Amino acid sequence: MHEENVIYVGRKPMMNYVLAVMNSLNQRGLDEVVLKARGRAISTAVDVEEVTRRFVKDLEAAVSIGTEQLPMEEGGTRNVSTMEITMKRSRAAEDKTPEEVEEPEKVIEEEKKGEEPEETEGFG
Amino acid sequence: MHEENVIYVGRKPMMNYVLAVMNSLNQRGLDEVVLKARGRAISTAVDVEEVTRRFVKDLEAAVSIGTEQLPMEEGGTRNVSTMEITMKRSRAAEDKTPEEVEEPEKVIEEEKKGEEPEETEGFG
Repeated sequence: MHEENVIYVGRKPMMNYVLAVMNSLNQRGLDEVVLKARGRAISTAVDVEEVTRRFVKDLEAAVSIGTEQLPMEEGGTRNVSTMEITMKRSRAAEDKTPEEVEEPEKVIEEEKKGEEPEETEGFG
Repeated sequence: MHEENVIYVGRKPMMNYVLAVMNSLNQRGLDEVVLKARGRAISTAVDVEEVTRRFVKDLEAAVSIGTEQLPMEEGGTRNVSTMEITMKRSRAAEDKTPEEVEEPEKVIEEEKKGEEPEETEGFG
């Protein structure tokens, strides 16, 4: 796993990460992208994976969870849950030319029709 | 999978769910418990798994993620990410008698020593 394949999911809008993943898969031609998230951002990482999967067909996702010790300002450490989602193109998709891969921009347009303002939970 | 094995993770304090899982594994003698969560509760479900794993040895966890369509009050549906964590005793643990399994209450006492008040992120 090269570091360039890793996207850290934090507090930015979920769609930013979806576009970063699609950029890695389509423009940069990577076959594998790893989403990493900690704490509350874990839910966002799952949203990112689920939304990306609607845009890019033939993606396989493997999820692993763990614990990381973060140093606290007051000294000592606290435990934080971590998640890694490895998103990989399956064989079928690798045979496609870039043109055959669904256009992200177009799909986003469709998604937005009749959509409510963003809520805390839910992504579309 | 029987419905009795399923614990739905929501907005209650994380430790409630940890105790529910340990109750299922120890008192009720189940070998498998499934955590189910949606949206923001997904992060909590991961915390529950990670903390339970510290109390109950020889647990294997398999994670799967998905999307569910929830009806909205205004009509229509919105998509919400879902997660299922299947926690299963591995072979080694099944051979143990109940007495050999670590006592949850005792461990929680130790965890609480010198612990900071609960934060949004992090679990101990």
